[in-house]
Amino acid sequence: MAKGQFIAIEGGEGSGKSTQAKLLAEALKARGLDVDLTREPGGTPGAEAIRGLLLHPPGEGWGAEAEALLFAAARADHVARRIKPALEAGRWVVCDRFVDSSRAYQGGAGGVGDETVRALHEIGSGGLRPDVTLLIAVDPTVASRRIAQRDGNAADAIGGRGQLYHAAVARAFKEMAEAEPHRFVLVDGNGPPEAVQARLIGALTPMLEQDR
Amino acid sequence: MAKGQFIAIEGGEGSGKSTQAKLLAEALKARGLDVDLTREPGGTPGAEAIRGLLLHPPGEGWGAEAEALLFAAARADHVARRIKPALEAGRWVVCDRFVDSSRAYQGGAGGVGDETVRALHEIGSGGLRPDVTLLIAVDPTVASRRIAQRDGNAADAIGGRGQLYHAAVARAFKEMAEAEPHRFVLVDGNGPPEAVQARLIGALTPMLEQDR
Repeated sequence: MAKGQFIAIEGGEGSGKSTQAKLLAEALKARGLDVDLTREPGGTPGAEAIRGLLLHPPGEGWGAEAEALLFAAARADHVARRIKPALEAGRWVVCDRFVDSSRAYQGGAGGVGDETVRALHEIGSGGLRPDVTLLIAVDPTVASRRIAQRDGNAADAIGGRGQLYHAAVARAFKEMAEAEPHRFVLVDGNGPPEAVQARLIGALTPMLEQDR
Repeated sequence: MAKGQFIAIEGGEGSGKSTQAKLLAEALKARGLDVDLTREPGGTPGAEAIRGLLLHPPGEGWGAEAEALLFAAARADHVARRIKPALEAGRWVVCDRFVDSSRAYQGGAGGVGDETVRALHEIGSGGLRPDVTLLIAVDPTVASRRIAQRDGNAADAIGGRGQLYHAAVARAFKEMAEAEPHRFVLVDGNGPPEAVQARLIGALTPMLEQDR
């Protein structure tokens, strides 16, 4: 059986990633593909439990290294128990955030360094990379407005970090996309969700036509 | 202020480690030392929460790599928030298990490899090593009897692994002790707790006299 395609959707807070991941999974299903929509941190019972510790730390908050190790642990479980088996069964995987989020947040903004985050990913998940990573970029004012409009507007331990942290995240994402132009597709995330989704599908057209 | 001494107590299941750690902390306090008795995984609110996930996994059980990453995350929090501050304040730290347990369990018996466990410890905790590591060794039959006599004799996800796993743990501990004879002290853990404790104190005599 053909190996499925692994699509990750990345971006900062308020970029519309989660909405777009859902819309994309529906669009792919409508084309007759077998799709597994998942997210990070999370996607398995173990990784969802780690997600709880990450977003709502029981102590004074995690240091940058502990946080990077926890993300790598969650991802190891997610890859071994869900993503790899799905791909091997020929399913398509749409994942809301993957290792590039760890590289941007813990590696870049958190100061752990890209080399260390990649070493942890190698140890935990054999260095698995998505076939394509859709990086959704929005104007900072659009992101702020979307965050303010969220239901139950309580920030978690990571989303609630300051403006400088999130600016560093955006910078790290941009640098990664420039360094790996064949894997990353930069998608303009401004405007209504349907318009953004149309851009995403457009970006995936080569992959979808190859699959016919 | 003088830096405190960092004493780790290691051994397999049923070696009497936890009992000996408590007795040792009391003995050191009786000598007028300021002692912090702690344990791994755990010792801080964050690391204790990770301990819960390790010993009672929410999913199908952790893979070897995820488990090693979780131990390293718990240790990073424990070192940063408790062990290092205590040592820097001139306190003595007595820790029931430390990185050598990860090397023996996840590295040796779990198959993750010693190099990887040490790399994770370098990332999470700057490679911190105890000043002395007391390795308590007991005859397998003594260990089995002690485990059987425990209150609420329910095995956790790690202690409950098979005989081959625990034999590999014992082998890895022995190899580490042989490779680092200046840090490790092998203590005979057979016999009544008071006799074992006397051996421990005997092993620490050079350190205690140096401190006068």
